[in-house]
Amino acid sequence: MNVNEIITEVSASLQRIGGIGQVFLVACGGSLVDMYPAKYFLESEAAALQVGMYTANEFVCATPKILGANSLVIVCSHGGDTPESVAAAKLARERRAVTVTLTHNDRAQLIEHADHNILYAWGNDTNVIDNPMAIILSLCVETLRQVEGFAGYQDFQQGLRQINGVIAAGRRQVAGRCADFARRFKDESLFYILSSGASYGHAYGFAICSLMEMQRVNASAIHSGEYFHGPFEVTDGETPFILMMNEGRTRVMDERALTFLEQYAGKVEVIDARELGIGALPPSVVEFFNPVLFYSIMCEYRAALADIRHHPLETRRYMGQVAY
Amino acid sequence: MNVNEIITEVSASLQRIGGIGQVFLVACGGSLVDMYPAKYFLESEAAALQVGMYTANEFVCATPKILGANSLVIVCSHGGDTPESVAAAKLARERRAVTVTLTHNDRAQLIEHADHNILYAWGNDTNVIDNPMAIILSLCVETLRQVEGFAGYQDFQQGLRQINGVIAAGRRQVAGRCADFARRFKDESLFYILSSGASYGHAYGFAICSLMEMQRVNASAIHSGEYFHGPFEVTDGETPFILMMNEGRTRVMDERALTFLEQYAGKVEVIDARELGIGALPPSVVEFFNPVLFYSIMCEYRAALADIRHHPLETRRYMGQVAY
Repeated sequence: MNVNEIITEVSASLQRIGGIGQVFLVACGGSLVDMYPAKYFLESEAAALQVGMYTANEFVCATPKILGANSLVIVCSHGGDTPESVAAAKLARERRAVTVTLTHNDRAQLIEHADHNILYAWGNDTNVIDNPMAIILSLCVETLRQVEGFAGYQDFQQGLRQINGVIAAGRRQVAGRCADFARRFKDESLFYILSSGASYGHAYGFAICSLMEMQRVNASAIHSGEYFHGPFEVTDGETPFILMMNEGRTRVMDERALTFLEQYAGKVEVIDARELGIGALPPSVVEFFNPVLFYSIMCEYRAALADIRHHPLETRRYMGQVAY
Repeated sequence: MNVNEIITEVSASLQRIGGIGQVFLVACGGSLVDMYPAKYFLESEAAALQVGMYTANEFVCATPKILGANSLVIVCSHGGDTPESVAAAKLARERRAVTVTLTHNDRAQLIEHADHNILYAWGNDTNVIDNPMAIILSLCVETLRQVEGFAGYQDFQQGLRQINGVIAAGRRQVAGRCADFARRFKDESLFYILSSGASYGHAYGFAICSLMEMQRVNASAIHSGEYFHGPFEVTDGETPFILMMNEGRTRVMDERALTFLEQYAGKVEVIDARELGIGALPPSVVEFFNPVLFYSIMCEYRAALADIRHHPLETRRYMGQVAY
């Protein structure tokens, strides 16, 4: 079943008891990052429909009282066996919520606790609309449309048709920059990643997954709007900042950060969604697609960094290597 | 008017149109940190009542569609003139929402956009229940009680009566540790701050305010539950970690992080709310008070660090010093 069919069936099954009242987005690490754009979308666009986003273990330890038969719980795990995520889906079912799971592993334990499971595509050669970030966003857009309507629905569908092409062109556009970035930043031990709006989650994701986990390099995400309320005091000539500039309503915050960084920071790398052509998407929904673009573009940056540092992206010293 | 009277008046004024439907918590930096426990509380305990937390500039740039006459918008700014926060309160009023503002400055611009303003007490010699974190939490507890009821209400009131005493004893208990911490960590250039549940916001707050802003030291907050999904790969013998261990439902996540840190991290400072006596509070609400305790305790830690580093907590190079 596709996204539309899944949500249609979920809505129908809950019709008798008032339909979908809450959407819970539950996962860990990189998979949780893939849920942030959907959280941002619903917080911005929804009226009655509630949304909550949780790292799976917290969802299990401190379960929202409202979790129940009117809840749609979306759980994502790439390998599909992350214990906290499996436990979250199991708990959701026990509380009579409807679960939609996403995984890349068709034998995942997660699927045992799914009312609907989506086996997603993965890798640079896939269409990003078949990857978890876009699928989860689509699930929430479809849910909003069916629960209370969403005026930007057709524009969003057009965005889905356009984004992969924007990304393909963007990848070619940054190829040279990635190599240059890797040369300039290969010996850095700490990076700050800035962004805003729908992309803040990916600033966090690039920090904890691409740098901390995959490169064993210190990193921290800062919201472009929060930067001026404390964090900017560490800005200097030596500390590297990566700024992902959004197209859309929150761009003004990214631009303000850029102006400050250009004056006071010595090492800045800017990835600008507008310059990379995302403006081709409908204005009413373009902001929700910024992180989809950034994810693919930043994969090029991290690959170049991994290559020049001779630290393969798969290298781990703890994850899957020791007991924890 | 006290918290109870304010919410009673707000509820009464919205009776005719269905009462309070959403609570928006809006501020910047340290004031936003003070709102996190209230966000965590409502996300955990509320059924129909919705909650959203926003850095003020994002609230203004990407205003939630639902913001309107049924919205209670709580805005906090210590100096009361933070442009983004003043703009957020102004916008909320324009959208016919009810605003409750908190500030320490009785001549603050913020007050011009307040339906109700709370002038709060500040400083080590004040009772923490008169400080913004506890006041904002109380406003949300009172709102939940009046909108849909809260079974733990009496326990929460008891917690408010007890927490200041727990903190006073805790301060004495850690005095020696703070001096020792400062000696051991005075030359560190990067700290990771871990916590979970209601205290995650304060892990972020200690990182961006106490360390980045007030000490010009690099720092990053990590959720204890997320630590194992990427961040822990940077754990080594040299990188300092500060773990704030909660009493209550999410403690299990903090304990798991502690077990790992004790085995693989060389530099760890643990602040344990249970050991500091917070268990004296009613079990049904104790978790919501962890960050109130941690805030006061961590003020002792940062003061010791500022002292030994000869870097006064008031020192700024950008904030209020340059244009941005």
